Amino acid sequence: MAIPEVKAFAFDVFGTVVDWRATIVEEGARFSAGTGLAVDWGRFADAWRGRYRPSMDRVMRGELPWMPIDALNRLALDDLLREFGLDALTDNQRAGLNRVWHRLRPWPDSISGLTRLRARYTLATLSNGNMSLLVDLSKHSRLPWDCVLSAELAHAYKPAPEVYRLACTLLDLAPEQVMMVAAHQDDLRAARAEGLRTAFIPRPLEHGPDAVPDLTPDPSFDVVAADLVDLARQMGT
Amino acid sequence: MAIPEVKAFAFDVFGTVVDWRATIVEEGARFSAGTGLAVDWGRFADAWRGRYRPSMDRVMRGELPWMPIDALNRLALDDLLREFGLDALTDNQRAGLNRVWHRLRPWPDSISGLTRLRARYTLATLSNGNMSLLVDLSKHSRLPWDCVLSAELAHAYKPAPEVYRLACTLLDLAPEQVMMVAAHQDDLRAARAEGLRTAFIPRPLEHGPDAVPDLTPDPSFDVVAADLVDLARQMGT
Repeated sequence: MAIPEVKAFAFDVFGTVVDWRATIVEEGARFSAGTGLAVDWGRFADAWRGRYRPSMDRVMRGELPWMPIDALNRLALDDLLREFGLDALTDNQRAGLNRVWHRLRPWPDSISGLTRLRARYTLATLSNGNMSLLVDLSKHSRLPWDCVLSAELAHAYKPAPEVYRLACTLLDLAPEQVMMVAAHQDDLRAARAEGLRTAFIPRPLEHGPDAVPDLTPDPSFDVVAADLVDLARQMGT
Repeated sequence: MAIPEVKAFAFDVFGTVVDWRATIVEEGARFSAGTGLAVDWGRFADAWRGRYRPSMDRVMRGELPWMPIDALNRLALDDLLREFGLDALTDNQRAGLNRVWHRLRPWPDSISGLTRLRARYTLATLSNGNMSLLVDLSKHSRLPWDCVLSAELAHAYKPAPEVYRLACTLLDLAPEQVMMVAAHQDDLRAARAEGLRTAFIPRPLEHGPDAVPDLTPDPSFDVVAADLVDLARQMGT
């Protein structure tokens, strides 16, 4: 099942490799314990993530100047704190909360799956997260990338085609030599439109234990794998 | 001696972390053994490296369009093969020789020094080598970077100031939080002019056992270290 021409993998990160929701809920609970402020952190995490795509869309439509995800997350955070009645938080507290995205925890299979894949393939991130966020997050959890690549390098957000093209250029590979790995089908469809190979990793818990996402895979994907260890197995490593 | 504000190191690679000359001589000897073609590979390596700076300067003056080091190395290689009477080499043989830059061997202290530094600091490359070259070279020798950064991302070659600035932007650090590490004083002076900290690693063998380079360090450098293990020690790791 290994696809012989594939030389490198480009990984979506938020939701595909790391569990943003559980990390925000866990860090939020610690924040509440330290400050005595009661917050429904699951709802908070979902609302924060809910602003992610619209804020990137605003950048791509030119309604906001280019800014990295750290800055977009902070704009959304300031809005949400108002909505959640947490307007009294200091700038330091806000900056600390915003940095949770630099400490997101990997899914249980991520490190072992990546480690197996890395023995035979080049592994890069290809995330809308900015470079420093990805570097911090990867260092924090010892994610074994060969190379950190970000949409920041293209000053455009996925699914903009130039992001996928830039990754191929920087890896000096033809699109069909690069396999995009994501838990999100729109990301994979956009990668496929640029000629990349695609691997879909459904993550049924990405949006929490109560969400019932439709994870029926688009039949055009090259690989569907239960997790990154399964992907490593299917790719012959 | 650790400088408290430093959070990350940006490493020059060719000559500073890897021994380009010894690797070219060694691979060249194997090439000669396989083909029966006698070549003075030390002289060849020096001539190849001698074309490196002038070819980047041509790009920076606009006499050549932007192209990555792989392409500049190949132009130089084709010239040199003519000079060395090796015009009969096939395209495959040329491509194979040009890839030696993707397999350059680290100096004996590089991996242990980097491993020690990485426990406390973020480690990035900041090389004129293109991204795919740096990724291959790092994978080949298991160099433990947190992040591969290249002048390619700025479409400019060091010592152009935008290369150092881009590294700080991508790492989301102020210039004084980043220490440039190099065996070449012009690289460090250019980094310092942008506000970065500087560490000079003299590499007396970079140009081979017979070269007598002037390695007297500019007194303005923040650190002078005998090798990367000594740098790790001086930086408190």
